[in-house]
Amino acid sequence: MTAIQATNDFIRAHKEQALQSVIDFCSIPSISTLSDHKHDMERAAAWVADRLRAIGLDAVQVMPTGGHPVVYGENLRAHGQLTVLIYGHYDVQPADPVDEWESPAFEPTGRGDNLYARGASDNKGQIVAVLAALQAWSRAGDGLPVNIKMIIEGEEEVGSPNLAAFIEEHGELLAADFYMNVDSGIGLADNPSIVYGLRGLAYFELWVHGPQSDLHSGMFGGAVHNPANVLCELIAGMHAADGRITLPMCYENVHPLSEDERASFARLPHDEESVRTSAANPPALFGEDGFSTIERIGGRPALDVNGLYSGFIGEGSKTVLPAKAMAKLSMRLVPDQDPSEIARSLRAYLLARAPKTVRWELKELAHAKPVVVNRDFLGVRAAEAALESVFGVPPTYMRMGGTVPAVSMFSDVLGMDTVNLGFALDDDGIHGPNEKLHLPTFYRGVVTYAHFFENLAR
Amino acid sequence: MTAIQATNDFIRAHKEQALQSVIDFCSIPSISTLSDHKHDMERAAAWVADRLRAIGLDAVQVMPTGGHPVVYGENLRAHGQLTVLIYGHYDVQPADPVDEWESPAFEPTGRGDNLYARGASDNKGQIVAVLAALQAWSRAGDGLPVNIKMIIEGEEEVGSPNLAAFIEEHGELLAADFYMNVDSGIGLADNPSIVYGLRGLAYFELWVHGPQSDLHSGMFGGAVHNPANVLCELIAGMHAADGRITLPMCYENVHPLSEDERASFARLPHDEESVRTSAANPPALFGEDGFSTIERIGGRPALDVNGLYSGFIGEGSKTVLPAKAMAKLSMRLVPDQDPSEIARSLRAYLLARAPKTVRWELKELAHAKPVVVNRDFLGVRAAEAALESVFGVPPTYMRMGGTVPAVSMFSDVLGMDTVNLGFALDDDGIHGPNEKLHLPTFYRGVVTYAHFFENLAR
Repeated sequence: MTAIQATNDFIRAHKEQALQSVIDFCSIPSISTLSDHKHDMERAAAWVADRLRAIGLDAVQVMPTGGHPVVYGENLRAHGQLTVLIYGHYDVQPADPVDEWESPAFEPTGRGDNLYARGASDNKGQIVAVLAALQAWSRAGDGLPVNIKMIIEGEEEVGSPNLAAFIEEHGELLAADFYMNVDSGIGLADNPSIVYGLRGLAYFELWVHGPQSDLHSGMFGGAVHNPANVLCELIAGMHAADGRITLPMCYENVHPLSEDERASFARLPHDEESVRTSAANPPALFGEDGFSTIERIGGRPALDVNGLYSGFIGEGSKTVLPAKAMAKLSMRLVPDQDPSEIARSLRAYLLARAPKTVRWELKELAHAKPVVVNRDFLGVRAAEAALESVFGVPPTYMRMGGTVPAVSMFSDVLGMDTVNLGFALDDDGIHGPNEKLHLPTFYRGVVTYAHFFENLAR
Repeated sequence: MTAIQATNDFIRAHKEQALQSVIDFCSIPSISTLSDHKHDMERAAAWVADRLRAIGLDAVQVMPTGGHPVVYGENLRAHGQLTVLIYGHYDVQPADPVDEWESPAFEPTGRGDNLYARGASDNKGQIVAVLAALQAWSRAGDGLPVNIKMIIEGEEEVGSPNLAAFIEEHGELLAADFYMNVDSGIGLADNPSIVYGLRGLAYFELWVHGPQSDLHSGMFGGAVHNPANVLCELIAGMHAADGRITLPMCYENVHPLSEDERASFARLPHDEESVRTSAANPPALFGEDGFSTIERIGGRPALDVNGLYSGFIGEGSKTVLPAKAMAKLSMRLVPDQDPSEIARSLRAYLLARAPKTVRWELKELAHAKPVVVNRDFLGVRAAEAALESVFGVPPTYMRMGGTVPAVSMFSDVLGMDTVNLGFALDDDGIHGPNEKLHLPTFYRGVVTYAHFFENLAR
């Protein structure tokens, strides 16, 4: 029996343990944005460190940052072989809207082929998958065929505000031949893609303040500019009817899609109907004129309201003219847009458009650069071959709409090439209620990682 | 000593009891819109009934309606005299935003000349004031100089949805020479006004639905129409830059302000700065072009967002493309606008403007007709004389921006003339946090009511 056969046998024999590991990990509500969950963040970091030790990694440590800690581990026993730096994150998004979960977000529950839990797909399931592959190689495959370093952070869902500094400080510890991001997806379960582009992010909280306290809407309505109405007008003014964003200079640095890239978008196995289904069935899709749906997601910027709040939102009616109104809003960015320039652009828009009847305040909550990675290096080729051998079809290449701030940081700070290899599906509902992990894809993911490591061995 | 002197002496000697009565009443969180407070509504109705009995009213009863009960009582012992039907409401608005209260909303707290509590001014303080005047006449003034019937309802703050039916059913019980509404105000403490016009109300909850659940804003942003962005666009489109409302036919039935009325608005003792101060100091006032601030409040329609909700509104960031977005919004109406026509107008606007990428749903939560009452009858003259004798200056006449649905109902169903006599001040913060009752005005109010009843005696 070859080493890869033995590894695959081990993986098959330990499917239940891998599933249990996802369940245990997903039971910890490690919500990075909510300060009430600080203790859960520590528990999750400790859980990861314990797992890294359990599968035999060396030098495992929970390392402090300016925010939530980073977990590190390594296995450098494959002398003469390449070293891969593996990245993932143990933090998750809030469970909101909590009422819409069919089973509680932090009580992982199996239904059909899926395991439902916050973080199951983004990113805990993917971390467990790569750990299962590493463990199988160590136990059954006669040791890892390559060297690995592993860094699992706790702030991806809030824009990785402390990661760049951490990478700079620990450049030597993190040195490797290339970087593998497991916070990624293949899109469709039977037609896997390799992500080679990720959008950037600029996330804001905008407050509009009018009177110093809520007013009776009858006594003052019509004479006091309502901050909620003003907020709506400001947000409405950020888009033209053709779906374009109207913020000044917004498209200035957008790299136009080349004919080659448009052809490659057109070859993807996604059609309008498959996207609409993955997108929880809105009545119809909508976006910027002149681009296909999949181009809009992967290759064009977007501006979305992520939250709105003003006045009375309880049961029934309250006739109040609110003192203030708030929107969380964010832009997804494409090369070569820069999050700081976008923040300046938004400020310029507000300065020009906000009426003198209100005060406004803009908080910058998170930012990450867009990135398109080099597809022509051995890491991507190893991933391609692994995917084809497990899924039976060659993968396509796609630019994804999401953001993983770490990707541009590793490339900028350490100059590494990147391979994005994770197994999330478009319809996993990540960030929404009823997030799920598709278990057949999860198991295929474990085997794909095992092949990937073998493909890298010289 | 005359009867009115004895009555005034009794009022002076019982100021503390009157204050305690306001405190007791305001300690009951009788929030009509929140179903959790059903028991408090019953407690408040029982408290009112007990007070009516305590001051010697007859036939006191708590009467069921389709919603919260009505409390009735009467004193018909002044043979040959007029009968006044006195109206008020024991329900209050929610305390939101709860965090902005300096002392808890339902723990009435004195600071300086004011008593702070939800309902202190709207409308519990006014009810206690008229009861104190009635009690003083009964105990010290040799019996009431007029007959009174009293009806205190529990659904004013939700638009009095069951009151019209109640009035129709109990027309005989409620028959009187005219109707006095104590849910009213004098505007400024030293320059009292009598309200002769009230705006109507049409209150809505608008939902915009896109995908069936929240989405990852990176994976789908730019390709799925964001319901929160759509909601903002719909709301923004409801006003033109000159402050006019753009809903179709909205101004069709608006009765233009006559030269006489504009002159009478101009004579009111309110200037821009006094309104801005009462309105909790917004940076600047704003409203429909071509009208003064006080005309905008009293004589022109207004459309306000009362609440906004979508997506994630917790701490920090969540990158979600929300499945739905909600606005509570309401219009204040002036003669001869009709709330049902306004609902049709809003539906027509939404049908024409909402994109096919979303579904929308409009709930009609409350409606009330605008009203301008007859100023030329003995009830108003008695109020005018009473105000002048207590405040030392003749009152002005004003159309107020608020709504009391009952006023048009009593006039429509029973054909009665109305006098609005209550003592709320523009800066009482009604419906907002830190609502207050200005105690010197409250005590003047008690004495004014006492004079008002005397002025009505033949």
